[in-house]
Amino acid sequence: MIKAGVVGGTGYTGVELLRLLVAHPGVELSVITSRSEAGLSVAELFPNLRGHVDICFQMPQLDDLRECDVVFFATPNGTAMSMVPELLDAGVKVIDLAADFRLKSPIEWQQWYGIEHTCPEVLEEAVYGMPEINREKISKARIVANPGCYPTAVTLGFLPLIEQGLVDDQHLIADAKSGVSGAGRGTSIGSLLCEASESIKPYGVNGHRHLPEIKQTLKWVSGHQVGLTFVPHLTPMIRGIEASLYAVLKSDQVDLHSLYAQRYQDEPFVDVMPEGSFPETRSVKGSNMCRISVFRPQQGDTVVVSSVIDNLVKGAAGQAVHNMNIMFRLDETMGISHVALLP
Amino acid sequence: MIKAGVVGGTGYTGVELLRLLVAHPGVELSVITSRSEAGLSVAELFPNLRGHVDICFQMPQLDDLRECDVVFFATPNGTAMSMVPELLDAGVKVIDLAADFRLKSPIEWQQWYGIEHTCPEVLEEAVYGMPEINREKISKARIVANPGCYPTAVTLGFLPLIEQGLVDDQHLIADAKSGVSGAGRGTSIGSLLCEASESIKPYGVNGHRHLPEIKQTLKWVSGHQVGLTFVPHLTPMIRGIEASLYAVLKSDQVDLHSLYAQRYQDEPFVDVMPEGSFPETRSVKGSNMCRISVFRPQQGDTVVVSSVIDNLVKGAAGQAVHNMNIMFRLDETMGISHVALLP
Amino acid sequence: MIKAGVVGGTGYTGVELLRLLVAHPGVELSVITSRSEAGLSVAELFPNLRGHVDICFQMPQLDDLRECDVVFFATPNGTAMSMVPELLDAGVKVIDLAADFRLKSPIEWQQWYGIEHTCPEVLEEAVYGMPEINREKISKARIVANPGCYPTAVTLGFLPLIEQGLVDDQHLIADAKSGVSGAGRGTSIGSLLCEASESIKPYGVNGHRHLPEIKQTLKWVSGHQVGLTFVPHLTPMIRGIEASLYAVLKSDQVDLHSLYAQRYQDEPFVDVMPEGSFPETRSVKGSNMCRISVFRPQQGDTVVVSSVIDNLVKGAAGQAVHNMNIMFRLDETMGISHVALLP
Amino acid sequence: MIKAGVVGGTGYTGVELLRLLVAHPGVELSVITSRSEAGLSVAELFPNLRGHVDICFQMPQLDDLRECDVVFFATPNGTAMSMVPELLDAGVKVIDLAADFRLKSPIEWQQWYGIEHTCPEVLEEAVYGMPEINREKISKARIVANPGCYPTAVTLGFLPLIEQGLVDDQHLIADAKSGVSGAGRGTSIGSLLCEASESIKPYGVNGHRHLPEIKQTLKWVSGHQVGLTFVPHLTPMIRGIEASLYAVLKSDQVDLHSLYAQRYQDEPFVDVMPEGSFPETRSVKGSNMCRISVFRPQQGDTVVVSSVIDNLVKGAAGQAVHNMNIMFRLDETMGISHVALLP
Repeated sequence: MIKAGVVGGTGYTGVELLRLLVAHPGVELSVITSRSEAGLSVAELFPNLRGHVDICFQMPQLDDLRECDVVFFATPNGTAMSMVPELLDAGVKVIDLAADFRLKSPIEWQQWYGIEHTCPEVLEEAVYGMPEINREKISKARIVANPGCYPTAVTLGFLPLIEQGLVDDQHLIADAKSGVSGAGRGTSIGSLLCEASESIKPYGVNGHRHLPEIKQTLKWVSGHQVGLTFVPHLTPMIRGIEASLYAVLKSDQVDLHSLYAQRYQDEPFVDVMPEGSFPETRSVKGSNMCRISVFRPQQGDTVVVSSVIDNLVKGAAGQAVHNMNIMFRLDETMGISHVALLP
Repeated sequence: MIKAGVVGGTGYTGVELLRLLVAHPGVELSVITSRSEAGLSVAELFPNLRGHVDICFQMPQLDDLRECDVVFFATPNGTAMSMVPELLDAGVKVIDLAADFRLKSPIEWQQWYGIEHTCPEVLEEAVYGMPEINREKISKARIVANPGCYPTAVTLGFLPLIEQGLVDDQHLIADAKSGVSGAGRGTSIGSLLCEASESIKPYGVNGHRHLPEIKQTLKWVSGHQVGLTFVPHLTPMIRGIEASLYAVLKSDQVDLHSLYAQRYQDEPFVDVMPEGSFPETRSVKGSNMCRISVFRPQQGDTVVVSSVIDNLVKGAAGQAVHNMNIMFRLDETMGISHVALLP
Repeated sequence: MIKAGVVGGTGYTGVELLRLLVAHPGVELSVITSRSEAGLSVAELFPNLRGHVDICFQMPQLDDLRECDVVFFATPNGTAMSMVPELLDAGVKVIDLAADFRLKSPIEWQQWYGIEHTCPEVLEEAVYGMPEINREKISKARIVANPGCYPTAVTLGFLPLIEQGLVDDQHLIADAKSGVSGAGRGTSIGSLLCEASESIKPYGVNGHRHLPEIKQTLKWVSGHQVGLTFVPHLTPMIRGIEASLYAVLKSDQVDLHSLYAQRYQDEPFVDVMPEGSFPETRSVKGSNMCRISVFRPQQGDTVVVSSVIDNLVKGAAGQAVHNMNIMFRLDETMGISHVALLP
Repeated sequence: MIKAGVVGGTGYTGVELLRLLVAHPGVELSVITSRSEAGLSVAELFPNLRGHVDICFQMPQLDDLRECDVVFFATPNGTAMSMVPELLDAGVKVIDLAADFRLKSPIEWQQWYGIEHTCPEVLEEAVYGMPEINREKISKARIVANPGCYPTAVTLGFLPLIEQGLVDDQHLIADAKSGVSGAGRGTSIGSLLCEASESIKPYGVNGHRHLPEIKQTLKWVSGHQVGLTFVPHLTPMIRGIEASLYAVLKSDQVDLHSLYAQRYQDEPFVDVMPEGSFPETRSVKGSNMCRISVFRPQQGDTVVVSSVIDNLVKGAAGQAVHNMNIMFRLDETMGISHVALLP
């Protein structure tokens, strides 16, 4: 059994990670930490875990975490980087669900996150944990930077087009819609039911932190800087991201559906939908699946891709467990093959 | 492996049963029938099942169903009774998720459901499938009548009080709130998002079909006819039932929390909440748990019980699988120990 | 034109009051105050008011408020009582939408609200602003205590029964369901969309602040102390309260529907629904109407009443404007005869 | 007083039209027709209208409608064209909220709507009822084709850019999100709360009926055929459309915010938001306003416009009343200046 620790388990990413880990046949959950809730029973904070977890949140102590085989960070940005070097030194593998190790450039990180990066050497070593493009590196990694939710949906949607150089990659458009859980469990007026339900709005149009992350990955894939307009929208639902992607095709001679079907045929967590069908976020609610459809309306020169995930699973906790499975040579789907909850 | 068949798998009870059965380690799903959707791939109708189920709906044929060890009926009321006798004759066990075998009196059945009962002899044999009161009988049953959703929440909430004769059982009040999935997947204006969201309303005040079912069970328990006012409310959410129950205590000398805790201490799917805490339906979303709290406001003579379930799991498909586990001597919790999806 | 001031206009009660006042033909909105948002344009905080209001929030100053004919308090509990005496002295009429002047006993007020009452003499003078029982007094009042949202729905629902002494008033049950806006615009985890949507739960079972307010009014009406169990439920919607009320009839000889129809026939904002129909909260969304149905299930001895309001209108801002209309001898329905928004 | 008739008032467009007309100071509602509900009281079907409307639905009879000054059609597509010629002959003005007179080409109409157009001569005469581009023609029109909901949001959003020829109009992108009321009050599984809530999905990607309508208007404005990719999304809310629009700028030298502010400065129902702020659909819920923001992310060459309306008001009934006001020389804002309901 893999001994797992979770640092910062009081947010939505944390509780979702706990839901997955407590039922994972290869994992023993040994430590959960929270500065604010130390001493509180996990099941008291999250009543869905009553009967499944009987440990309490404890203060984050390196000594306890060093006993783990793997430590997940589900902390605010900037927290993981203060503890990771010592954990790596102790031989503990780390999966960071926050953004600390996602951007390769510490300068860019500081620009977007407003904090100086304190361990650029770990940044260099960290592997971007998107199995569909980095499986090999993940399997050997000591530290994995788990991708952001929007970047997961957008990148998987664009990937086959960019890999094959089929579109004008200087004018990519990503119009993404996320459920409110993406904003976290912190109290903010904008996340109140009375503010966020029965309404939809764009936000972060002039620059969202996930923009440089997506562009970084697409640059790795294409070999050059891409141009991307990324507009997220706050959508009146709890879970789910739908990303509608638009690009201008450079050639007429391409079977888009086959392209996607082949690219993802061996991927356990990417499902290319039948031609003409539309993915909906509820088809992945609670599951680790990304479902994708690709269209070419009126046989014009514009390709439209729709990609859906559960932001808390494939976009966070599920992908983290997937990474863990790869890092520890477990069956990749172990513990994350849930059927989505529908309706 | 138990070979299972599902008759009428196109409603919400059906898809939820499929979600549970495809992941159940002791079951092989061998037949799914639907008159209206025969020939259609199950995963096309329910995209959450893509990758988990690869069979198609087929016409209901007795020959196919006779090959099963157990057949679940997730059909409209009145359908199961036309096929059940032949299945029982063929040695197949039956679990009916509709109402055909819930009321012991065929006359009462006809009054409430408007159809003549065609196999009263099976009615007599059928066991009411509420494990918390009928475990022994269920284990020997050939046919189980799976309880209704409201009756499950209300009966488990009243049970300890009625068993012990602690309240005036001629003036019981059950104020129940159900998510819209309780109304099924049929098209009706009242179930449209634009009609049912952002609103709550009572319905069926003058007589809901679940009233006689609840009263029948409470009569078994108490030994005499009870008086019950049952008011269901359509609540703007997909899943979940909360039943707030009210009764006047006959005695001051009772520790209500201990009573409930002891009554349910060995029940895997009834969770008595800590004193002073409130159950919420989201704490059981997608899980087979019933969570209950009991209160005595201002130490007065009125007891208040709040009981929550997921109407599609503990109130339907999950309880059906629980019954199957008991009938086939499997571990009772096999395949139905999901952690609720929160948020 | 009546010059109106609003103290504390940044909550949901405040913005709803603004919606009504800016379109009221007899009112000129002259001052809006907010300590936290002083200097901010009202329309910047509440974009629905863009083009309708062009003033800014200002610090609460008695000098400005003394220029008003009427001042509405939409402040947290305990604020109004510190300013009201001086406003009354200056000849300004006051309508308090908070709870400061609702309970007649300063001792009881302190018990339930945890603050000592600083002007018990004003408390004595204050009129409970429920037009259906206090119209005459309201018309002469200098200060009106606007009723709470739950008390409005529950009291109007029980009123005809209690006035006529038709039920056992020692065992009244009020099972109420409120939209999340009842919890206000303050940030609390429990009001987040991800916590409050797709779920329903009871709360405050052991004692909600609206309990003594309801009991006080029913005592005025009945002439003696009543027994009431009041259980509020947080319901996944923005607006609306539905109260299901239960009581045991003392006599068989009563035409309940006629009783209610006659009691409310001259009331502009209470609508007794046709026999057999069910009120739904969406039928009053954005309107000042209370709709009520009364039932006697199976002709038993238990009466069931369902009463619905929009908690922000009839349960707060609309009732406040109704009170203002009465106090200033305007047509009672002026400015508050909106058709509910459906769907 | 203008005598108004409504044909087909049983859908969501119909009930919204009734909400506006019953409170309109210049209108007397004299006839409402419905084949399916003839004889039923309007207030019985739509309880929000109780106390505001006391007439019944009647069978559509030309004799009754000829007595009106104006007749609104809120019927399924293809119905209006069978009655309009005779009404026009009788001197009745007509506003069609369906699509019968929106597309100028009867051939194109047949392609998209699958029905042969029966009065192409009226088609030629009909004025496209978007006041912001056709005010003069509307004021003289006998028949107005009220725009579709998506076309209203998308066209107003693109208008200043296209009028000035500032963008590559061969690769316009419109990613639109609509509440479920856009699908109407008809029963379809996809509009059930359990199917449409807690989920978002694209639909109609390969060709939605509103595509040719938008392209027709933009062609009028630009003088040539435009290229547009239009992707609508079903969004889990009742009301509201948000359209995010993307285009590549042809020049660097443009102050986008000023362009929009000037274009719409005299329009009573288009509100250009302050720079940097985001429109949200709830800011227009129940109101006739369109709110628009324009962005140029990272000062790149892509312009992003976000445009929000209430699909049932500015996108249907409100715009229809606006057209009526113009046709009858009333104050343009009469009866449609409601403050949006927030929260």
